[in-house]
Amino acid sequence: MTGTGVWVIGARGNVATTAAVGARAVARGATDETGLVTARRPVADLDLPDVADLTFAGHEVREGSLVESARALSEDGTPAPETVETVADDLRAIDDRIRTGTAVNAGEAIADIADDTADAERSLAETVSRIRDDYESFRASEDLDRVVVVNLASTEPPTADPERYDTLSAFEDAVAADDPDLPASSLYAYAALKGGHPYVNFTPSSGSALGGLRELAAENDVPHMGRDAKTGETLVKSALAPMFAGRNLRVMSWEGHNILGNTDGAVLEDERNEAGKLESKGDILDSILPDIGHNRVRIDYTPSLGDWKTAWDYVHFEGFLDTEMTMQFTWEGSDSALAAPLVLDLVRLVAYADRRGEGGLQPHLASFFKAPLGVEEHDLSRQFETLDEYARERRSEVSAGGEQ
Amino acid sequence: MTGTGVWVIGARGNVATTAAVGARAVARGATDETGLVTARRPVADLDLPDVADLTFAGHEVREGSLVESARALSEDGTPAPETVETVADDLRAIDDRIRTGTAVNAGEAIADIADDTADAERSLAETVSRIRDDYESFRASEDLDRVVVVNLASTEPPTADPERYDTLSAFEDAVAADDPDLPASSLYAYAALKGGHPYVNFTPSSGSALGGLRELAAENDVPHMGRDAKTGETLVKSALAPMFAGRNLRVMSWEGHNILGNTDGAVLEDERNEAGKLESKGDILDSILPDIGHNRVRIDYTPSLGDWKTAWDYVHFEGFLDTEMTMQFTWEGSDSALAAPLVLDLVRLVAYADRRGEGGLQPHLASFFKAPLGVEEHDLSRQFETLDEYARERRSEVSAGGEQ
Amino acid sequence: MTGTGVWVIGARGNVATTAAVGARAVARGATDETGLVTARRPVADLDLPDVADLTFAGHEVREGSLVESARALSEDGTPAPETVETVADDLRAIDDRIRTGTAVNAGEAIADIADDTADAERSLAETVSRIRDDYESFRASEDLDRVVVVNLASTEPPTADPERYDTLSAFEDAVAADDPDLPASSLYAYAALKGGHPYVNFTPSSGSALGGLRELAAENDVPHMGRDAKTGETLVKSALAPMFAGRNLRVMSWEGHNILGNTDGAVLEDERNEAGKLESKGDILDSILPDIGHNRVRIDYTPSLGDWKTAWDYVHFEGFLDTEMTMQFTWEGSDSALAAPLVLDLVRLVAYADRRGEGGLQPHLASFFKAPLGVEEHDLSRQFETLDEYARERRSEVSAGGEQ
Amino acid sequence: MTGTGVWVIGARGNVATTAAVGARAVARGATDETGLVTARRPVADLDLPDVADLTFAGHEVREGSLVESARALSEDGTPAPETVETVADDLRAIDDRIRTGTAVNAGEAIADIADDTADAERSLAETVSRIRDDYESFRASEDLDRVVVVNLASTEPPTADPERYDTLSAFEDAVAADDPDLPASSLYAYAALKGGHPYVNFTPSSGSALGGLRELAAENDVPHMGRDAKTGETLVKSALAPMFAGRNLRVMSWEGHNILGNTDGAVLEDERNEAGKLESKGDILDSILPDIGHNRVRIDYTPSLGDWKTAWDYVHFEGFLDTEMTMQFTWEGSDSALAAPLVLDLVRLVAYADRRGEGGLQPHLASFFKAPLGVEEHDLSRQFETLDEYARERRSEVSAGGEQ
Repeated sequence: MTGTGVWVIGARGNVATTAAVGARAVARGATDETGLVTARRPVADLDLPDVADLTFAGHEVREGSLVESARALSEDGTPAPETVETVADDLRAIDDRIRTGTAVNAGEAIADIADDTADAERSLAETVSRIRDDYESFRASEDLDRVVVVNLASTEPPTADPERYDTLSAFEDAVAADDPDLPASSLYAYAALKGGHPYVNFTPSSGSALGGLRELAAENDVPHMGRDAKTGETLVKSALAPMFAGRNLRVMSWEGHNILGNTDGAVLEDERNEAGKLESKGDILDSILPDIGHNRVRIDYTPSLGDWKTAWDYVHFEGFLDTEMTMQFTWEGSDSALAAPLVLDLVRLVAYADRRGEGGLQPHLASFFKAPLGVEEHDLSRQFETLDEYARERRSEVSAGGEQ
Repeated sequence: MTGTGVWVIGARGNVATTAAVGARAVARGATDETGLVTARRPVADLDLPDVADLTFAGHEVREGSLVESARALSEDGTPAPETVETVADDLRAIDDRIRTGTAVNAGEAIADIADDTADAERSLAETVSRIRDDYESFRASEDLDRVVVVNLASTEPPTADPERYDTLSAFEDAVAADDPDLPASSLYAYAALKGGHPYVNFTPSSGSALGGLRELAAENDVPHMGRDAKTGETLVKSALAPMFAGRNLRVMSWEGHNILGNTDGAVLEDERNEAGKLESKGDILDSILPDIGHNRVRIDYTPSLGDWKTAWDYVHFEGFLDTEMTMQFTWEGSDSALAAPLVLDLVRLVAYADRRGEGGLQPHLASFFKAPLGVEEHDLSRQFETLDEYARERRSEVSAGGEQ
Repeated sequence: MTGTGVWVIGARGNVATTAAVGARAVARGATDETGLVTARRPVADLDLPDVADLTFAGHEVREGSLVESARALSEDGTPAPETVETVADDLRAIDDRIRTGTAVNAGEAIADIADDTADAERSLAETVSRIRDDYESFRASEDLDRVVVVNLASTEPPTADPERYDTLSAFEDAVAADDPDLPASSLYAYAALKGGHPYVNFTPSSGSALGGLRELAAENDVPHMGRDAKTGETLVKSALAPMFAGRNLRVMSWEGHNILGNTDGAVLEDERNEAGKLESKGDILDSILPDIGHNRVRIDYTPSLGDWKTAWDYVHFEGFLDTEMTMQFTWEGSDSALAAPLVLDLVRLVAYADRRGEGGLQPHLASFFKAPLGVEEHDLSRQFETLDEYARERRSEVSAGGEQ
Repeated sequence: MTGTGVWVIGARGNVATTAAVGARAVARGATDETGLVTARRPVADLDLPDVADLTFAGHEVREGSLVESARALSEDGTPAPETVETVADDLRAIDDRIRTGTAVNAGEAIADIADDTADAERSLAETVSRIRDDYESFRASEDLDRVVVVNLASTEPPTADPERYDTLSAFEDAVAADDPDLPASSLYAYAALKGGHPYVNFTPSSGSALGGLRELAAENDVPHMGRDAKTGETLVKSALAPMFAGRNLRVMSWEGHNILGNTDGAVLEDERNEAGKLESKGDILDSILPDIGHNRVRIDYTPSLGDWKTAWDYVHFEGFLDTEMTMQFTWEGSDSALAAPLVLDLVRLVAYADRRGEGGLQPHLASFFKAPLGVEEHDLSRQFETLDEYARERRSEVSAGGEQ
């Protein structure tokens, strides 16, 4: 299978850069697929598009080049400098396919870091139209079977009263009325779903979560999923919290303190954007541990850490005979190295679903997200089980049926 | 439902003492059931024997009294002194039902701490016979529906070549021949299963794990399960390791360092006994993470910690693009407060199974054990799921069928 | 030597309660002097007032009783319930000597928790006068040689432009003019120094730090010292930071995250009060590590922790050949158990200085404080050395001279 | 000042390699002097030999080259690959000056890793003579003012009954008698002191610690110091333990657990060699905290960590009112990056002392060592103070006197 395009919103950000470097490094045999969920069985048994066959492009509001971004990331250790040089020509080819994006209604913090945007003096409808043209031109010029749109842009502030966009007609009215609250991420998602392109929202921004866009995806039978990829502290929480629940241990306090030093951290310093982030993080514990007493998550900007995200979590819990006990953990991970393979996983899996005609939300992808759309289950192992069952079922269909 | 006896091997040890104090404190309304798996839904929906209706008794090789043991534990914070006083009379009543046990072939470390044993100058057959009499007298004198035997004695050294006891006849021949390698824990188990008493092995000792005893349990249709209750560091491992596996992150090293200060710790200082402990701990990671590079568990004796078991684990793993990352956690738990409710859970669940005629191994109890007999699955969440499914199925039977 | 009174501002707070319980428990032989700096040599060699001979009294704005406060603290583990009962009568005797205090200009958070204050409808001059009367009545009625006033009240917001009170006359003019910015802590200090009572400021509030009050202390030759006792995370910092400095390791980031659940924590949630706290914490690292890149301290309120203060510090530093390394620590301490003995130490040492006629600032007490008045040295070991030298010099004088 | 030679025993080990790379990188402006104690004031004010002017050579028993060693270290992150290339020619020049060393009586673990040694079929006297020739040839051929000998070889097992070498004549008799217990490290030290070369023992091996060699150093007025450089966990301990002592907090248990993956770790797996290491580590806590209850240090070999040494320390202590509290820290440092600058510091400082005629032990260098010869003080800050005083005194002499 060939011909899958990956259109990345935020195409030169850390995660986007690492995903592109990694995919091309895999293609050139310079690294292996460690960290890809789709490289382990039973998911690896599906007939997914090869990592080497993905073609990257995207929107960006900051100047620069992928090679520059990759070299800057190298300073923090990942990817290795020699890997960047190995794929440098591939990155330059991707750069040629990157178009100027929009930061309309994405908040001041993002506006501040934007060098150029494609929305000035345009109506929302014109902006959407231009985005759709960008998607289509990419597909046509690269002769691709399909284009998956992935949102990797910096987190926007939360959208107030999102229920006002609960129907497609309400959403489209808002576009027509140049509604100043409609965030960029949802415009990108709208353009994708409208054009029949599978869509993945890797960030906490609104994206395709609005009711109107879910309606559109169902109507057009386009696969989409989100939101907020689960890469670090929250991933650990979703693995650990079920232990306390299953053993009937009462969590009195769960303090999570994250420090990080990349662009994401700088953007999160803007309090409204942080609010967007913290909202989806908090949900997990409240869902798995409904009786939790105190649950706080902090994210602070610590420049020297660069792309390394360090989290300290402190869990104060009560067991039998009113005994108070504690657990704490420290997680030190490269945000990009953890996130990038998931981007490739998601692209492969939604492309696969699209080929099979499995449109709408993709609940078997819940394990990838902090706030999986349409899924209540936050227990990581059970989420993995859903994915594995999906894979096993598809495989057995194929074995039984012949072609896929 | 009334009339369940709990016969504890090691009846005045820390876990046994805490279980007895806790059960009586629940009965007297001095504490709640936090920490009991059987107190959360859907397991709580089963018609289990009430905690308040359990009658305790057992074997012990050390002198002393339960009240003394409980007060000594209070020094470390659990149970609270006022709780001990509330149940002091109940503890004295249990003490009256405690008989002198055997430490035959249990290793030197245990022999050293034994004040008195019932095996001197007796053949193994006589020892077994005496144990069976103790079980039966308890049932008769207390007029109990059933007696569940629970092994809480200190860990024995591993049994060499356990496969020589793979059949019931081989086991019984060994008893008849006074085989000096047959450990006390298996004699207790044999006596239980022979007499039709459900049996739980909470420790890493052999207990009912020998093939011959599994055969006996199946033949007599007696429920039994083990071994090595999962209360602290290993519990956390079984929750966390699936995260690395599911995300295809390669664990290069997993170092576990445990320090504790109770009798268990002192016994574990004897190297052969430690070998018995470490064997079952190591298995979990090797099973969940077959590609793990380095996996070491240490247990050290740190007297000042008393009953508090502290573990530090350091996980060095590799993700995408060969990026090396780390996670570490510290777990500080009261061993007894974590273990005691599980004793009550297991007694309730095997008593329930016995009443329903569900003999043999109890795989739905895997989540309670580091080395669950007959179960390959070590993912904690999936083990919980098996238990919850068992509970939901039994409930729906009842709802469908009427009485139970 | 007998007859030292301890007048505590905030007399029923956690630290005050623990200090009173502890002093009386020492007096009654129910505990030892572990944790008292004055109980280790060479400081113990000085002829200090005995802990058993201290008489407690004080001001308080909250209702309740010391016995109640002590029992509430017991819930968190310190002091032990039996210790509280041992000294309960002593505590009641102290309660009889506690007078209603003032919370004038102490900030809204403190005003909110105050049940009663002695400042309503009084001028500042009248308030001061009343405070002085309270001090004097205590001395007279208990027939004491001297009274040491110790500020243990909750932290006030920082005083704006403290340099406007840089002279005694400016300060006294402000009192006369009912200046609404003069905080309660400085009024208490003024009353103490004016009346010749040694004064210790255990908190970050202004207390005797204002220039005018230093002038008054020097003029009247009254010993005083402060401010902000160094009990937990900052204590560790002052021990660790010199290691980085001495080895010429460049600290790029030092993140400190404190969580605590006592009244202090609740008051600190009020942002202005937190500002007061963080100001003195930050100074230490900036002083010891002038080239530090990033230095943040957070204090969060986590109710379940009660009086236990937990800190996680993460140090990101650079060594030779641009190598980035990390150190992190977690500190879990009972705030009151750490602070209370220091209160007794400081009372004993300033009483001693007062008897010897050593008025003014007491730089040899720098090790007790986060922001020691008049001292630039923040290296903990060097601060201890100053104290030890002071003790050795006084002892050798005595040995040489005869009486003391 | 020019002309200082550095003769390294274990010349291609990790620390030796990093020191050589670092010195040449400083010389070529490719890195700065962060991590050098001699680069901070007041030590930096002394007229020390420049780092750029040090000439390296040494003994080695393993094959290979410095460039290979440096590249292997680069895999673990330090030094950076580009730094290695910058100094590659310098490293090759050093390689040409490296001679085959001896591993006589250095234990089996070291013998196992040795590729070639210069002691086979030679008497100890001949071995010493050959070593002396190597030192002298280096000095002569490079026209150096002086040669400092530094022991960086892997740790030997402890020397049994070291007091039998308490006099120079006893030592020399043992050399003459081919005593099979005389370890290589002491033969190297003997050769150095006999030839008038300043000597530094960076390792826990015997080196110049034997009484007979101290006598020789004093007699010949040659500066020497040791032993066991303080680079990681013990460094932190020597900074933290004085905090507990100064505050009269009773340490009940101090557990130290070290994991590392370099050659040192592999050698330490040999139990006798580990004994040598642990002996000097333990001393520090026992000295600073004479009442410590339990003090254990473990060192385990964890291959994936390479040159990164990770330590977890857990401190269980008691404060006022019998309150039990805890502190724990994790230290993650590159062993070589921490040790290498200290090698350069010690060479510069003993060369300086030698030039000034300050022979014998160098107690002002205590801060560099876990077991400083002739020094009882283990408080890190006070050790630094001794060094700083030394520097200030020498500076003021110079200022006062003119010449230096």
